[in-house]
Amino acid sequence: MKKLKRSARLVEMTQYLLTRPHQLIPLTTFAQRYGAAKSSISEDLAIIKEVFEDEGNGELQTLAGAAGGVKYIPKMGREQALQFINQLCEKLSEPDRILPGGYLYMSDLLGQPAFMNEAGKLFATAFAGRAIDCVMTVETKGIPLAYATGAELNLPVVLVRRDHQVTEGSAVSINYVSGSHKSLHTMSLSRRALKEKSRVLIVDDFMKAGGTIQGMVDLLGEFDAEVAGVGVLVESGEVESEQRLLEDYVSLATLRAVDAKGKEISVAPGNYFTGK
Amino acid sequence: MKKLKRSARLVEMTQYLLTRPHQLIPLTTFAQRYGAAKSSISEDLAIIKEVFEDEGNGELQTLAGAAGGVKYIPKMGREQALQFINQLCEKLSEPDRILPGGYLYMSDLLGQPAFMNEAGKLFATAFAGRAIDCVMTVETKGIPLAYATGAELNLPVVLVRRDHQVTEGSAVSINYVSGSHKSLHTMSLSRRALKEKSRVLIVDDFMKAGGTIQGMVDLLGEFDAEVAGVGVLVESGEVESEQRLLEDYVSLATLRAVDAKGKEISVAPGNYFTGK
Repeated sequence: MKKLKRSARLVEMTQYLLTRPHQLIPLTTFAQRYGAAKSSISEDLAIIKEVFEDEGNGELQTLAGAAGGVKYIPKMGREQALQFINQLCEKLSEPDRILPGGYLYMSDLLGQPAFMNEAGKLFATAFAGRAIDCVMTVETKGIPLAYATGAELNLPVVLVRRDHQVTEGSAVSINYVSGSHKSLHTMSLSRRALKEKSRVLIVDDFMKAGGTIQGMVDLLGEFDAEVAGVGVLVESGEVESEQRLLEDYVSLATLRAVDAKGKEISVAPGNYFTGK
Repeated sequence: MKKLKRSARLVEMTQYLLTRPHQLIPLTTFAQRYGAAKSSISEDLAIIKEVFEDEGNGELQTLAGAAGGVKYIPKMGREQALQFINQLCEKLSEPDRILPGGYLYMSDLLGQPAFMNEAGKLFATAFAGRAIDCVMTVETKGIPLAYATGAELNLPVVLVRRDHQVTEGSAVSINYVSGSHKSLHTMSLSRRALKEKSRVLIVDDFMKAGGTIQGMVDLLGEFDAEVAGVGVLVESGEVESEQRLLEDYVSLATLRAVDAKGKEISVAPGNYFTGK
């Protein structure tokens, strides 16, 4: 136990809460930690709560009673979310991203941890109210997004592999049809990676018709698990609605069109604000 | 600009600094943001600095002068580091991790974002003083560790692929010999992923003889880039020293022996504290 002045206590409590999202912390933890009365702790928390909420940085939820405490729920405010999504659209529109075949180079964006953490915070905001046991993605490019989301929601990440690996133990494999090419692929998940009945948030970097994500949904069926939500960074708008395999998902940006000849990429915000 | 009381200002500044590691923030940024005198901001920073350093959570470096400001350097204190490494060793020793062939199941540990972030903070502590431009790993299992390290050091992550992907554009591929099986593999890096002369911190989840990491080192040569450091979560101690391809690296745990028959795994701390 250490006796701290209120000013130092506020700094420490802020740090303590920010590094423990979605965890219930009993007031007695703080009271014992700082040798302070619960009433002083409550006053401190009121100050922190106000700053967090003014900043659009998240909520402090207070639960009263013996089993009570305080929980930090990371949330990105509307203004910051708009700013982030506009920035994402702007960056995706840079014409030198166009690759042969009309593909888009995104690895520079996906390679920025701070950028990924912001995207993860957006997904954590969108799915904060749902009952979720874990975040799932398939290798490779969705991994940083899945971890960023898992970190903000304090949830483990389950990683689906393209091939069965010796380091995964016994696994369940399925075949799936990738919607855009109608080609057949395999994905595989370690038996011990996912408990039965889990509620799973699927996260990926890109979705066209949704074949890969539908593959993950099918894989969940093999584990008697269920989809709690789907979040994608970028969705392709170049899909006829009857081809789309999924209806219920959150996207941050929509790739409208890639004109390889004219070197123009048209990107719009995803359905994050408008919902589905 | 908003006028805040000192208590609220401390909460906000703490949050602001924690989310911007390794970034120089001019005092005027804070002074303008809160409509406060620089002298008050300096007093606030002194309080924050003391709490961070007492907690073993990192340093606040203050640079004087016109181009000056404050920089938060995340560091894990010795006590916390010891605790983390002991916890890692303990978890790795759980006998039900043993897979056929003497492999170890680690995906549950690698799937915990908070655990990965702590490991990343340890690497950030070990390499805080070096000049580094980016963090590199090869897919798949080292990715969360590389991002956690990149986030703490405020550096981008460069991802080496096993195969050349259409979404990566033109790429440089090399063959490498994986030391433990003496088998030949390919790895590939997008031309635009890495600038020439970059100083690169290589991070991976596991190292046996070091063939995969040596592959990344060779790949760096193709980009006229150099190794700034190597960090691995777990190294195998079952390697004769003449077989080891790398000498200079930081490991958090050493896998001494896996006795599949007796269901025993022997794990010891890596060279993090002892150095190489």
